Amino acid sequence: MADTGLRRDDVTKGGFSMRKIDVALLGATGSVGQRYVSMLAEHPYFRLRTLVGRSSAGKKYGEAVKWMLEGEVPAEIASMRVEEFSLDTLKDCGLIFSALPSEAASSREVELARIGKIVVSEASAHRMDQDVPLLIPEVNPQHLLLLERQRSGRKWDGGIVTTPNCTAVGLDIVLAPLVKLADVKLIVVNTMQAISGAGYLGVPSMSILENVIPFVKDEEEKVVRETAKILGRIEDGKIVNASMPMAVSCNRVSTIDGHLESLLIEYEREVSADESIDALSNFTGEPQKYGLPTAPSRPIIVRREQDRPQPRIDRMQGSVPGMSVVVGRVRRGAAKKTLQLTLLSHNTIRGAAGGAILTAELMYARKLLQN
Amino acid sequence: MADTGLRRDDVTKGGFSMRKIDVALLGATGSVGQRYVSMLAEHPYFRLRTLVGRSSAGKKYGEAVKWMLEGEVPAEIASMRVEEFSLDTLKDCGLIFSALPSEAASSREVELARIGKIVVSEASAHRMDQDVPLLIPEVNPQHLLLLERQRSGRKWDGGIVTTPNCTAVGLDIVLAPLVKLADVKLIVVNTMQAISGAGYLGVPSMSILENVIPFVKDEEEKVVRETAKILGRIEDGKIVNASMPMAVSCNRVSTIDGHLESLLIEYEREVSADESIDALSNFTGEPQKYGLPTAPSRPIIVRREQDRPQPRIDRMQGSVPGMSVVVGRVRRGAAKKTLQLTLLSHNTIRGAAGGAILTAELMYARKLLQN
Amino acid sequence: MADTGLRRDDVTKGGFSMRKIDVALLGATGSVGQRYVSMLAEHPYFRLRTLVGRSSAGKKYGEAVKWMLEGEVPAEIASMRVEEFSLDTLKDCGLIFSALPSEAASSREVELARIGKIVVSEASAHRMDQDVPLLIPEVNPQHLLLLERQRSGRKWDGGIVTTPNCTAVGLDIVLAPLVKLADVKLIVVNTMQAISGAGYLGVPSMSILENVIPFVKDEEEKVVRETAKILGRIEDGKIVNASMPMAVSCNRVSTIDGHLESLLIEYEREVSADESIDALSNFTGEPQKYGLPTAPSRPIIVRREQDRPQPRIDRMQGSVPGMSVVVGRVRRGAAKKTLQLTLLSHNTIRGAAGGAILTAELMYARKLLQN
Amino acid sequence: MADTGLRRDDVTKGGFSMRKIDVALLGATGSVGQRYVSMLAEHPYFRLRTLVGRSSAGKKYGEAVKWMLEGEVPAEIASMRVEEFSLDTLKDCGLIFSALPSEAASSREVELARIGKIVVSEASAHRMDQDVPLLIPEVNPQHLLLLERQRSGRKWDGGIVTTPNCTAVGLDIVLAPLVKLADVKLIVVNTMQAISGAGYLGVPSMSILENVIPFVKDEEEKVVRETAKILGRIEDGKIVNASMPMAVSCNRVSTIDGHLESLLIEYEREVSADESIDALSNFTGEPQKYGLPTAPSRPIIVRREQDRPQPRIDRMQGSVPGMSVVVGRVRRGAAKKTLQLTLLSHNTIRGAAGGAILTAELMYARKLLQN
Repeated sequence: MADTGLRRDDVTKGGFSMRKIDVALLGATGSVGQRYVSMLAEHPYFRLRTLVGRSSAGKKYGEAVKWMLEGEVPAEIASMRVEEFSLDTLKDCGLIFSALPSEAASSREVELARIGKIVVSEASAHRMDQDVPLLIPEVNPQHLLLLERQRSGRKWDGGIVTTPNCTAVGLDIVLAPLVKLADVKLIVVNTMQAISGAGYLGVPSMSILENVIPFVKDEEEKVVRETAKILGRIEDGKIVNASMPMAVSCNRVSTIDGHLESLLIEYEREVSADESIDALSNFTGEPQKYGLPTAPSRPIIVRREQDRPQPRIDRMQGSVPGMSVVVGRVRRGAAKKTLQLTLLSHNTIRGAAGGAILTAELMYARKLLQN
Repeated sequence: MADTGLRRDDVTKGGFSMRKIDVALLGATGSVGQRYVSMLAEHPYFRLRTLVGRSSAGKKYGEAVKWMLEGEVPAEIASMRVEEFSLDTLKDCGLIFSALPSEAASSREVELARIGKIVVSEASAHRMDQDVPLLIPEVNPQHLLLLERQRSGRKWDGGIVTTPNCTAVGLDIVLAPLVKLADVKLIVVNTMQAISGAGYLGVPSMSILENVIPFVKDEEEKVVRETAKILGRIEDGKIVNASMPMAVSCNRVSTIDGHLESLLIEYEREVSADESIDALSNFTGEPQKYGLPTAPSRPIIVRREQDRPQPRIDRMQGSVPGMSVVVGRVRRGAAKKTLQLTLLSHNTIRGAAGGAILTAELMYARKLLQN
Repeated sequence: MADTGLRRDDVTKGGFSMRKIDVALLGATGSVGQRYVSMLAEHPYFRLRTLVGRSSAGKKYGEAVKWMLEGEVPAEIASMRVEEFSLDTLKDCGLIFSALPSEAASSREVELARIGKIVVSEASAHRMDQDVPLLIPEVNPQHLLLLERQRSGRKWDGGIVTTPNCTAVGLDIVLAPLVKLADVKLIVVNTMQAISGAGYLGVPSMSILENVIPFVKDEEEKVVRETAKILGRIEDGKIVNASMPMAVSCNRVSTIDGHLESLLIEYEREVSADESIDALSNFTGEPQKYGLPTAPSRPIIVRREQDRPQPRIDRMQGSVPGMSVVVGRVRRGAAKKTLQLTLLSHNTIRGAAGGAILTAELMYARKLLQN
Repeated sequence: MADTGLRRDDVTKGGFSMRKIDVALLGATGSVGQRYVSMLAEHPYFRLRTLVGRSSAGKKYGEAVKWMLEGEVPAEIASMRVEEFSLDTLKDCGLIFSALPSEAASSREVELARIGKIVVSEASAHRMDQDVPLLIPEVNPQHLLLLERQRSGRKWDGGIVTTPNCTAVGLDIVLAPLVKLADVKLIVVNTMQAISGAGYLGVPSMSILENVIPFVKDEEEKVVRETAKILGRIEDGKIVNASMPMAVSCNRVSTIDGHLESLLIEYEREVSADESIDALSNFTGEPQKYGLPTAPSRPIIVRREQDRPQPRIDRMQGSVPGMSVVVGRVRRGAAKKTLQLTLLSHNTIRGAAGGAILTAELMYARKLLQN
């Protein structure tokens, strides 16, 4: 686990001062916004203070939202009023989660950082900015170091930290331990992605029922370039991208949640299935070390059955439902020096709300947040 | 188009003596059996004389079958009686189509060949026998030459000709022109297969609804070994397998018909998308030359839209519905010297009944069949 | 078959002067528009002369349309240019099919009638106007008589003829023979409607996958009031609504095409299943008498299996695919004097494009159309 | 809440002697068996002591079961060994839950009752026996009185108590308060049932994908006759069936869990929606009075949105997920004196495992169980 260079106190689970941070949520009524609400409702570090929505501003959250998750809207949040976006509304929050569409995110996140706010964003707008961390807490916590450069370069006191595309998240958690086993010649990924990844209105039922769409707009490019950044190393305060030839093919299938991906890695040497399974099963990171509330005990769960993982059955596995990547069918390929496996990652939890919350928890543990 | 070495007259479309061959169908009431019935109902070369079924023997076909295709059972066939399997029942048929399960196929097809019958079988039982052609009429018609060796070696007058696994069929039609463009280092295939491929009762709805199953029993092995044989060349009357490293990952998705496959080919040199598209679009074979009734005018249809082919929309494209492979998203991979595309092949037409019928038509055109 | 009172020549099949009518199609690129295009491509009475679309105006149809039906866009139509709506554009067409959304339809259809055009519309805008026929050709052809009153009252030379809501169409074809058997006390209908009924973008996949939505906006009211009009009788040139207590419950399920409906009729006397089946099986109307091109030989097909009709399997049954209503499970109810059955009607063929075309064919046969 | 006549102590929540009853589960590895296991894993009254399975006998439960529920097999149960059925194996259990298929259930349940065991069974075998309670704890707890007659008549010390068909359960919970509002002339029910109701292998995906099957074998008859018994009253120690004309139409749709039902009640007088909603919302029974662990605080949840309940979203609503019936669209029908609504009931929880466990809890609270 790399040292981030940022000031970090000797934090251990239970040793935090438990004063909660007031947080705001931009895009609160959308389907990903709902995941945030359900995960933040009784959070030990964060208190959901402000809900921001566009069309629903002025209404109570419980009336504005078309709640799609199991159970009811948490009662204390149902009665909160949805606010319109304004810097004034957000001035008392120490942390802002942004589940905005990318266009809206671009300028607003900058405005917020400029007035000193920390923004944890899953929007794609700033992901590839050279001074913005693109973070998976178990994989590249050391990239938080970029925040220093971001602040000095942009001359602001706040900060923007982004989380990756939902397809890249699961993939990169699995690649993190595997790329250390041997030099990699080629990575081939084929995805079978859930409809929730496109937002509530994104995929018309006429398009996907009894069908597969072999295309997800911009997704293949995002996965390739975000992976190169996430698996990159810090040198002189900058990220040097990982250079691994990668070919990605993205498909939309008729599942609700859970992106399933077939992965083939061609190594420079033979890598056995057992060796890979060991590396995957034992993989942990800072979130597990700190015992963060949203950290699953095992970031990667390896299953031995021949027909798993399956989206409907496995997406909520593990100690924190939706936060573990489930891997199966780990095997040597028929072709030499290739390793094959199938992975599953919950796209609206680990790949969106949960990943962002875990990122914020890591920043909290590292004392990067304050009210 | 290689010469088969078998006696072949100067046959051209329209020049056939149009005396129809009496044919039998083993496994007539199953879902693939129904496809045969609908395609043979008014066939110019073949007359469906005998329907063989196990549990339904004795009943009229129209009563025995649980017809799942659009429209009605063809009237003249609805009134035919389903027979039990016996050599005597089949003695007057010049050609037997076998849509039997593999275990049943193994011995019965041998018995039939021994009494002089030509069997065209889609069962896997004899596909890998060294003296049995595994045929895709556009791809390896010259493999029919094996029939001579089969007859002399097995000392029978009949013959067994097999058709490949439904996933291999579409793949190998696409590979046929592409492997000629340059030397191939690695082939990576990811399938998203329709439920009909497992038979009517094969996939419980509880397994596949809102789900993907990342496993199809024995399928990956079949695709690898059958492709090696199909793309192999004949030397000294034997097949020398093609040697191409190949990694396959098979998935079942909730579509009714149409196997969708993502294909990546790593070549020894850069191969452009245009070059590939030309090769694919212009690919034809003996069936097109002879103008066989079930031969599509274009075995491969290349689509230019960014989100095609899609199973529900594209599986019946082309001049003979279900017989063309539809290809889209042909592109250079992000990784060097790789080519990527998505292909779609109708698994119960081109991948089963239609492929077998086209094979029989080719044999008819080559004068390998007689009553 | 009632006399309409309109001038009608002694028309019999084959006796038409076969000069084709030039027709225009409003809303040509939508999913229902595509059905029109495929059904009008080689129509014996009509020549598709003008395609009108909003966002696609100026493009060739083949490029503007996102074709969702099997096969390709008919070649001669693919190259036609989509026009913007204007009275001038439509001045040379003798008949206009309107597949417009209801708001757009309201004023445009009136404008067209005012310049002398006959509009056959499936929009709901004018369905309940007292002087506008709401037509199912087999059920209430005599309602065409309203056209006279419409013309004299509105002082125009054209005419607006409407077709019913897609859920009402199948229901009312089945009710037509059944309400004649005995007096009716109560009709209870429960629908399970296909997603195509809401238009291509109407039902998000997140709403309907692994789900049922027990509500279709305004549908229950439409079915009740349209049925009352359609089954009404003409008196003094006006329609007197049928008065039958009716309770409807509409649900959306995840099928592509085909509205399935459970129907219960409580009669004043016991009505047997056999009696009902006879009435349903023998039901025909003017379209069958005239032998109209889009008329199915049997408007109602009764199936005897215990588990039919099923949308995916039965929606295209009959001599003109999609134009017959398929009925099954005809039975006496457990409750006294009740009859129960299940019916299936193709919502975008019989319930939309096909129904409108059949209506126009009937008007052609009755000499109500001219170029 | 009627007095059952059985000896009952003054039991209140918290006042139970908390000695747990040892229970056995017949049919432990099936999909319903899995629901029992997950609900009994940490049950305050019951200790799951013996798991009985047929094909899996001898294996550890964790290996024998193909676990389909979210999360993992509860650890303490995963290591239990599955036993073969024998009276000896079950002799130390004070209560046996039977999730057997009906044929197996018929004789085995009798054998168990004969050796003094209490069997709570969801099999249909003994549901209609005149001396066997068919129980919905909130609806007809007084039917437990039949146990006395059963014991004296059959000369055994044990007892068989059954739970209803999964479609009847939700319906009858809703009917219980509604039939008290006014005299009922006719009840019309249309179901849209989930595939899990037919067991894991019951519905092939080829049957139901993009389809509806308008038939569920024997279901309509079961709903009618079981409802008559459940809503019947006890007279002279016997049940006098409720006599309400009822017409049921059952359909299978492609949802995983949750039977959705449209209900129409024709009353002798006008009954308003508000009156009905009050009766539904306020309905409770003995389970709520005793505060049984599996009793939802509200047996019926009434929703006011126009498009609810929906299976995927609403089936787990309420204080005990899967145990409440969710009702929506309560409205006066278009026809006079009719009331219409839509109800949703979780078929494998309230309609199977959960309903049986709640029944056993009620018997425990009434001191009808002992080790």
